[in-house]
Amino acid sequence: MAGLSHFDEAGRAHMVDVSDKPVTARVAVARGEVRMSAATLALVTEGRADKGDVLGVARLAGIMAAKRTADLIPLCHPLPITKVALDLTPDPGLPGIVVEATVRTGGQTGVEMEALTAVSVACLTIYDMVKAVEKGMEITGIRLLLKDGGKSGRFEATP
Amino acid sequence: MAGLSHFDEAGRAHMVDVSDKPVTARVAVARGEVRMSAATLALVTEGRADKGDVLGVARLAGIMAAKRTADLIPLCHPLPITKVALDLTPDPGLPGIVVEATVRTGGQTGVEMEALTAVSVACLTIYDMVKAVEKGMEITGIRLLLKDGGKSGRFEATP
Amino acid sequence: MAGLSHFDEAGRAHMVDVSDKPVTARVAVARGEVRMSAATLALVTEGRADKGDVLGVARLAGIMAAKRTADLIPLCHPLPITKVALDLTPDPGLPGIVVEATVRTGGQTGVEMEALTAVSVACLTIYDMVKAVEKGMEITGIRLLLKDGGKSGRFEATP
Amino acid sequence: MAGLSHFDEAGRAHMVDVSDKPVTARVAVARGEVRMSAATLALVTEGRADKGDVLGVARLAGIMAAKRTADLIPLCHPLPITKVALDLTPDPGLPGIVVEATVRTGGQTGVEMEALTAVSVACLTIYDMVKAVEKGMEITGIRLLLKDGGKSGRFEATP
Amino acid sequence: MAGLSHFDEAGRAHMVDVSDKPVTARVAVARGEVRMSAATLALVTEGRADKGDVLGVARLAGIMAAKRTADLIPLCHPLPITKVALDLTPDPGLPGIVVEATVRTGGQTGVEMEALTAVSVACLTIYDMVKAVEKGMEITGIRLLLKDGGKSGRFEATP
Amino acid sequence: MAGLSHFDEAGRAHMVDVSDKPVTARVAVARGEVRMSAATLALVTEGRADKGDVLGVARLAGIMAAKRTADLIPLCHPLPITKVALDLTPDPGLPGIVVEATVRTGGQTGVEMEALTAVSVACLTIYDMVKAVEKGMEITGIRLLLKDGGKSGRFEATP
Repeated sequence: MAGLSHFDEAGRAHMVDVSDKPVTARVAVARGEVRMSAATLALVTEGRADKGDVLGVARLAGIMAAKRTADLIPLCHPLPITKVALDLTPDPGLPGIVVEATVRTGGQTGVEMEALTAVSVACLTIYDMVKAVEKGMEITGIRLLLKDGGKSGRFEATP
Repeated sequence: MAGLSHFDEAGRAHMVDVSDKPVTARVAVARGEVRMSAATLALVTEGRADKGDVLGVARLAGIMAAKRTADLIPLCHPLPITKVALDLTPDPGLPGIVVEATVRTGGQTGVEMEALTAVSVACLTIYDMVKAVEKGMEITGIRLLLKDGGKSGRFEATP
Repeated sequence: MAGLSHFDEAGRAHMVDVSDKPVTARVAVARGEVRMSAATLALVTEGRADKGDVLGVARLAGIMAAKRTADLIPLCHPLPITKVALDLTPDPGLPGIVVEATVRTGGQTGVEMEALTAVSVACLTIYDMVKAVEKGMEITGIRLLLKDGGKSGRFEATP
Repeated sequence: MAGLSHFDEAGRAHMVDVSDKPVTARVAVARGEVRMSAATLALVTEGRADKGDVLGVARLAGIMAAKRTADLIPLCHPLPITKVALDLTPDPGLPGIVVEATVRTGGQTGVEMEALTAVSVACLTIYDMVKAVEKGMEITGIRLLLKDGGKSGRFEATP
Repeated sequence: MAGLSHFDEAGRAHMVDVSDKPVTARVAVARGEVRMSAATLALVTEGRADKGDVLGVARLAGIMAAKRTADLIPLCHPLPITKVALDLTPDPGLPGIVVEATVRTGGQTGVEMEALTAVSVACLTIYDMVKAVEKGMEITGIRLLLKDGGKSGRFEATP
Repeated sequence: MAGLSHFDEAGRAHMVDVSDKPVTARVAVARGEVRMSAATLALVTEGRADKGDVLGVARLAGIMAAKRTADLIPLCHPLPITKVALDLTPDPGLPGIVVEATVRTGGQTGVEMEALTAVSVACLTIYDMVKAVEKGMEITGIRLLLKDGGKSGRFEATP
């Protein structure tokens, strides 16, 4: 079995050597959601118009967090990110907000962690801005939807 | 209705003025989980003994992230954290890992965001270390279990 | 003459000892402006409605920068900021955007640098977002309007 | 009209995709100034000899800030800076200090923001070190003098 | 036996709870040295006059690093530092540079790590600036000279 | 004589221009040690089994610090690190812990400072975790063992 590449044969954590991997175009897409009551969701979505842009602040927090990924995740390689975009979509069916992040780079390792970190921090920021009205919100369903580029090839999540 | 305190009356984001709030003892407890296949969970838990300590690395990442909260969450106040502890418990029933973080401070605002950030980054770190064997893992159920201290009083999540 | 307190008697830079200063309520207000052509200003102000919120992004960048002040300014003390707010006002007379930041803390030194840093980074962010249409913009008139609290007392800029 | 590239067609902020832009040699030069009284300027310039090196501290702060640019400016791409140099020149005519920064990289986007950030933080640092003797100083005239490299070609400020 | 307080009874790393410790005045002094050849030392000390101020740059790096201590040392509490000063003294007897750092705070834990971190980063900075002429330099003798304040009382190193 | 490349001909600190240097594979190995009493060393090494993993925490701190090198060392270039590994070996002969770090990159300058920073912060972290039982420990013998790649060629420390 492949095992956990972040440890050497003696079980010691290390940052994996990617020196000999080629620089290739890479992309990752991740998503997550913040579940809240319908009343809270209404407050957030109305806010976009005139009371304060929760989603705009969360989007920016997610973009900035993508750039901090290697600072936060101990064994993550620093990478020159070439694109970050976040979609934050209110979903009355949850009810809540769905967050989706797309990150690109030309590098020697993938940007899965950058996309997942962007989603996580955008969700945390939504929680922070709305917690005065509902502390019981839940951040959930954070997962990788797509990755491409690099030796391990394309991954697409099953729906 | 109370509305969103992170915006002023004109809808502009700001860091709320807590200058006149008293410094009180505050605590927050948050939790989340990383769901994975039973085979992956076995790899992680065995690893604790001799192949590499996934949970130890994730615990440390969570502790360090708690200290970076105000850097990541745009409208969060910087706070002098006085305690951070994380429990990471394998749960074969999920299957997966349950992460719980406790944060304390003496400050003018609460440490909910610090506890939630610690949980999120610990979960992301687990994902990072295990993704070579399973990319379909899901980070889920991140929520506040308890907060106490400060004017708004005690909050306990319903089970 | 008082001289430069950031140096000791031998001319060596140091972080001034404020250990024995009392913790008092402190406030600082700073301002600055980004001058641009009338056409560019129109693009920015229209953008608030439907094309993209330049001022909202700049406001957030300023708030976050206030929290990074002690990281950026070598001899600045770290301070527990209790409030940051920025006003960004289009001024057709310049033409350009006027940025004003207010910062509060309860601490042993003032928050002038936090307010000035918030203004500077908000101005830089406006420049960044608009530079594709006008590279000749100028950031200008950054100064302290008001400081209060602490032994040295109140300062108000002459108009 | 070209519009603001930092927003997508729906007006949402994003980090622009530069994945397909070639890596080219790039340079940017920016400048700014700190205006002060002649007496304060004398204190700063004398200090270089034996009382404390204000300009040396500000130069270092500017160099270090250039490396933090992508952390401060929300939609700025991280870039592998290959050179930073700052000139800080006392100008009795202002009276004040003129700051000029030159930054180089080989990358997919320009280093205008790095040069402007270096200038801004160097100016803020001068303010910090001298504010004990004059709080009414003004940071002004921050602008791009030159940029070269990349598709959009050479820009030189009009004098 | 006292054991290692950074681990709980199950051997898990945590940030120790200092919530109930009183805020007291604390000081720590640490020292270290960079050993080099006499020729290299001559280059450094001459440089102070007209070729470049190695010691001034290293002093500033040490001051700034003291403020980053809680970011670097995983289980270290963030503390509001109230003073940092470094002495860098050429010692022809080594030959080399002796670095001594003094840090003060009013807080719930001591500043030993801040003083030791300031010394370490100042030494690393000297190495960086001089390595073009001598790669065989050694950083050595980093230790705590003095700590005072707090329940555990005064510690003075034996000479 | 070559002189100090981190200063220009006027003695002003700058980040050296490496724009025209080719990107080559580079490696650096550094080491250092923390000296302590035999009783303290026994506590640390026993701890690996069941009381808390001092060396695991220090290893992680070293890896993360390598990624922060350009933030800490003022004139250091940011580099895309491709590998970091640390060995921490108890040595009863000292008695103490020997720390060795290996860092690789493909870049325009070497990674000596990254390896030395990783060693220094790992040593500081050991000190932090063990200081409750012995404050008199010493961090010593930090030096470069090997560097290779780049124009200046291979350096190996004399034993």
